[in-house]
Amino acid sequence: MSRELRLSELASVLGGTWEGDGDLVVTGAASLGEAGPADVSFFEDERYRADLRTTRAGAVLAKSGVEAPVPVLRVERPYEAFTAVLARFAPARGELFPAGVHPTAVVDPTAELAPGVAVGPFSVVGAGVRIGAGTALGAHVVVGREVAIGADCLLYPQVTVREGCRIGDRCILHAGAVLGSDGFGFVHGPGGPRKVPQIGIVVLEDDVEIGANSCVDRATTGRTVIGAGTKVDNQVQIAHNVRIGRGCAISAQTGFAGSVTVGDGVIFGGQVGVADHLVIGDGAILAAKSGISKNVPAGETVFWYPALEISKARRLVALVRKLPEMARRLAELELRLGGSNDAREE
Amino acid sequence: MSRELRLSELASVLGGTWEGDGDLVVTGAASLGEAGPADVSFFEDERYRADLRTTRAGAVLAKSGVEAPVPVLRVERPYEAFTAVLARFAPARGELFPAGVHPTAVVDPTAELAPGVAVGPFSVVGAGVRIGAGTALGAHVVVGREVAIGADCLLYPQVTVREGCRIGDRCILHAGAVLGSDGFGFVHGPGGPRKVPQIGIVVLEDDVEIGANSCVDRATTGRTVIGAGTKVDNQVQIAHNVRIGRGCAISAQTGFAGSVTVGDGVIFGGQVGVADHLVIGDGAILAAKSGISKNVPAGETVFWYPALEISKARRLVALVRKLPEMARRLAELELRLGGSNDAREE
Amino acid sequence: MSRELRLSELASVLGGTWEGDGDLVVTGAASLGEAGPADVSFFEDERYRADLRTTRAGAVLAKSGVEAPVPVLRVERPYEAFTAVLARFAPARGELFPAGVHPTAVVDPTAELAPGVAVGPFSVVGAGVRIGAGTALGAHVVVGREVAIGADCLLYPQVTVREGCRIGDRCILHAGAVLGSDGFGFVHGPGGPRKVPQIGIVVLEDDVEIGANSCVDRATTGRTVIGAGTKVDNQVQIAHNVRIGRGCAISAQTGFAGSVTVGDGVIFGGQVGVADHLVIGDGAILAAKSGISKNVPAGETVFWYPALEISKARRLVALVRKLPEMARRLAELELRLGGSNDAREE
Repeated sequence: MSRELRLSELASVLGGTWEGDGDLVVTGAASLGEAGPADVSFFEDERYRADLRTTRAGAVLAKSGVEAPVPVLRVERPYEAFTAVLARFAPARGELFPAGVHPTAVVDPTAELAPGVAVGPFSVVGAGVRIGAGTALGAHVVVGREVAIGADCLLYPQVTVREGCRIGDRCILHAGAVLGSDGFGFVHGPGGPRKVPQIGIVVLEDDVEIGANSCVDRATTGRTVIGAGTKVDNQVQIAHNVRIGRGCAISAQTGFAGSVTVGDGVIFGGQVGVADHLVIGDGAILAAKSGISKNVPAGETVFWYPALEISKARRLVALVRKLPEMARRLAELELRLGGSNDAREE
Repeated sequence: MSRELRLSELASVLGGTWEGDGDLVVTGAASLGEAGPADVSFFEDERYRADLRTTRAGAVLAKSGVEAPVPVLRVERPYEAFTAVLARFAPARGELFPAGVHPTAVVDPTAELAPGVAVGPFSVVGAGVRIGAGTALGAHVVVGREVAIGADCLLYPQVTVREGCRIGDRCILHAGAVLGSDGFGFVHGPGGPRKVPQIGIVVLEDDVEIGANSCVDRATTGRTVIGAGTKVDNQVQIAHNVRIGRGCAISAQTGFAGSVTVGDGVIFGGQVGVADHLVIGDGAILAAKSGISKNVPAGETVFWYPALEISKARRLVALVRKLPEMARRLAELELRLGGSNDAREE
Repeated sequence: MSRELRLSELASVLGGTWEGDGDLVVTGAASLGEAGPADVSFFEDERYRADLRTTRAGAVLAKSGVEAPVPVLRVERPYEAFTAVLARFAPARGELFPAGVHPTAVVDPTAELAPGVAVGPFSVVGAGVRIGAGTALGAHVVVGREVAIGADCLLYPQVTVREGCRIGDRCILHAGAVLGSDGFGFVHGPGGPRKVPQIGIVVLEDDVEIGANSCVDRATTGRTVIGAGTKVDNQVQIAHNVRIGRGCAISAQTGFAGSVTVGDGVIFGGQVGVADHLVIGDGAILAAKSGISKNVPAGETVFWYPALEISKARRLVALVRKLPEMARRLAELELRLGGSNDAREE
């Protein structure tokens, strides 16, 4: 998977200025600390100033004015430029997912595959499935009947998409993700929980990414929806009837109980839990490990378990840590007033 | 997967009274807010009264006396009746899991499959496995040697059941679930953790449901047991030697450390953690995200981290939120008494 | 999978003294409470003294001086000896993973498999993969191109190892584990999160174990590393660029955000969360469900959310539980001083 980039060419692609040898060639990209002479790196965050001084990188992307011990490619936003470099070094889709249907795959004759679709070894595509142009299924992907998948999607190995679900364009499902598993719906009676059939579906809008081993349950009726451009990390659990807006980022191991509604541009730290039927407003931020037990207004940042507006939560955390001092001061007052022990003994 | 139900017939099946046009036909079921003219819906919870007024449903299940803008099918327990309607619209097992062994499946010649067993594409059934009548394995299910599976079970795609485990009748294992993985047992020594072989098994009694990507570890010796009728949501972790009773409901991302014992009819919210060797009594309720660090008596509801009886926990949560006020009142008292700063400087 | 062990032989293997019938044969191993007459059990922890008195085991491993109602095999460290017995009853690797490449497996002609490698049904091995001697892949394992796997590893069914990752010798990956999924890296802009290509890899050093449905993300650039001898339980999430030291034990459902650095011999309880870029020192212990928001010094034990040194955390937990009493005492003081209500009304 090795590739060569000439720094002078890279400069013109990134719209920057190359201050070094025009013929310098790099074959990889790395952080300042990891980079070797064949790697390009970047400097933007002052915390890495020491790494910059000692880097062994072949070249560094940096803003004008930054001094470096190695040749510099000047750009306005070094990290963003670096991500463009990364894209150059990433393997092409065709390298990982060769086009065409692998001879071992089982594709139902009624499935409609657009031109250029890739289906990997042992993948199973059910009756009535439609898959858009340029979409690639890795090995061992199982797509249930009547599923619709848009164009230019990537489904990594061992993904399961159950019957009837709908996936937009340019979505990415990482290994082991499950779409359309039954919602956890039961009627509780004297004989224990009794299953409520889950006949809805899951809808992923365009540009959604679902992390490895994450699960999105089908709705009881209707749809569980994840809005366009929302990115979901690994091991996230999204229950039935949840509706998540556009452009959200949901970190690993976060869980949503049933029927939660999330607005647009919401950011979730890892291991957040959201109780059922809550509403999270646009642009809210939910700090890692928070336990959300009531609605979160738009634009608010919350933290803690149970979660509160973050400045309140932080003040309470600080006061809890002062409890030993408060207890001592309280005892001191009682001592000075005298007789408090008697009072408490009444 | 479309299906048609005549409302008059539905009324007689549900034991209700149909107040509308005898020939009305519905082709789906949905919540009041989602339903269209071809859907049947239901009204039971007063919180949805506004949705009832504006619903576009073709018909609604409701108790007698409830006024609705659309035809009503009168039943005593609308939600329960609605779940019976859902079952009518759910795809038949045979639609999703065609009977018979798919030609690509690898079934060991010593495995015993009862009549009507379905084995999906690429599924692997090991030596000495027994599978009961009517059980269906989806695509890509891996069943290890000497496993016993009862009748009328459903194993969704990508499920793994490791060697020797036993599954009762009418169990459902959702996609990606793992049964019988090694318990996390190590002897800690100077050279780091050393593996303790895990030679026990997992036993699921009848009517157990295991969610997508959940794991149940095999016992070190003997059995990890999940009792009859217990339902387990997605991404739940059940460690070695755990024993869970009958009729429990365990929500997503909850985790049990080793050798926990759970009684009957216990309800777990999501993301609960239970420390090793604890005992949770019958009928207990463990609120979402609670961290359980001591035994929970039968019938008790607990909450928080570390968890306490819920009314105590709620009082403490409320008092923590009053800490700023308590701190102010404490400072005020010190000010009125004077000299407290001196006292603290001693 | 049944096997027979003669107790007199077992004694000489374990270096102990057999006090019973030389010809006694056992066919299994079990805890004192579970064991039957054909099982060997052990007694070391005083908490199980009552179980020892009533055990039905055929024989018990115990220290000298311990009285038991059944024949005893005297050893110095009964539990450790018992784990050696367990290893005798565990199925041999070849029983679970027959050597050789299953005819249904798809192995790229450029892959190099050392002698004795097992590849199970439907497993897929990509171009340029190298697999060391004695390594076994179960059914449905997917190994991406250019992956290197050492000797004597075990990959259970449904494991995915993505392109370019490196696995040392004697590693175990349990069912459903995912190695090398994309790190969760995005540039947040007005149009929502934009993906940062993840071109690094995952490196597992020797003797690492990864639990069922756990995920280790590939680095953005460079390597996500798990050190030699570290054991990872089920459903653990390890994000991109994390570096974990040697001989650590990481319990289930714990999650690491990006770029965390963990020393050697660190122990994590279940459901711990570690925020990004933190450093956890050698020998630290992180109690279950802790939320780690700052660095943890070597040797320190921490607990709670947000986590603190454990003795401080426990004192605070105890004081929070005394808040009702503190509130009462505070009100009492105000009452005795009089006028406090007026003061607060100002």
